[in-house]
Amino acid sequence: MTFKSHMRAALDEARAAAGRGEVPVGAVVVDAEGQIVARAGNRTRELSDPTAHAEILALRAACAAKGSERLVGHDLYVTLEPCAMCASAIAAARIARLYYAASDPKSGGVAQGARVFTHPQCHHVPDVYDGIAAREGETLLKAFFQDRRRDTDL
Amino acid sequence: MTFKSHMRAALDEARAAAGRGEVPVGAVVVDAEGQIVARAGNRTRELSDPTAHAEILALRAACAAKGSERLVGHDLYVTLEPCAMCASAIAAARIARLYYAASDPKSGGVAQGARVFTHPQCHHVPDVYDGIAAREGETLLKAFFQDRRRDTDL
Repeated sequence: MTFKSHMRAALDEARAAAGRGEVPVGAVVVDAEGQIVARAGNRTRELSDPTAHAEILALRAACAAKGSERLVGHDLYVTLEPCAMCASAIAAARIARLYYAASDPKSGGVAQGARVFTHPQCHHVPDVYDGIAAREGETLLKAFFQDRRRDTDL
Repeated sequence: MTFKSHMRAALDEARAAAGRGEVPVGAVVVDAEGQIVARAGNRTRELSDPTAHAEILALRAACAAKGSERLVGHDLYVTLEPCAMCASAIAAARIARLYYAASDPKSGGVAQGARVFTHPQCHHVPDVYDGIAAREGETLLKAFFQDRRRDTDL
């Protein structure tokens, strides 16, 4: 398994989210051996939970499986730049490496906006790798919102 | 019920969290009629969940009860300045007013650090009232960490 196949798994989760009528974002958590230990897509609507972003659900599932608040040595792959909430959760979980696909000028909190990892109040900073499969991540989102606009126009 | 009694309820949740060996932070969500609709204390250790801060648990419970991702017209009371994760979740839930007690130079994300509400990537900004019962909120935290240090020294 390479980082590309891990991002493909995250993209699969994003597509599944779109199929459920959720904003198509997907995430996977990978352990130090390169095994996917948790995967999730966005479920904010289904769960009536504004915190149910793909990253948060994947982190919570991985932590629950491990019985620990911390995922030392684990990586997170996500199809969209995390928002400030998810970036801060990624720091709290002590994720070693963050890989993300599309950047998010509208809501991102890593490379723009709150830039969560750049402040002394952030107690752990992962290595960040952006732009992996960025076009696929972005295409999924654009198609989803175009479809929604078309539905609204009918 | 006044804002002081709501903060007292949040302080009660913080004390209960300390009793469970959790960092003593408590939060309550109050609806437009002034009724407490959700209350929670920090449970990150118990749940092995780095996102299980008092604010996140209270927001999730209030949203689940309402069957909605958004808590328009609702207020959140919390005994400590929210971190970037919680501030961002508060914005996502469309909380109208945020009242907090102690400020948090170490991990805060509202008045310092990420200053989540100050960026265009934050799509909703609550009215923020700080310093309510700040001493009580701070005293609980200081006592908790003093006890922990004492235990470590033994």
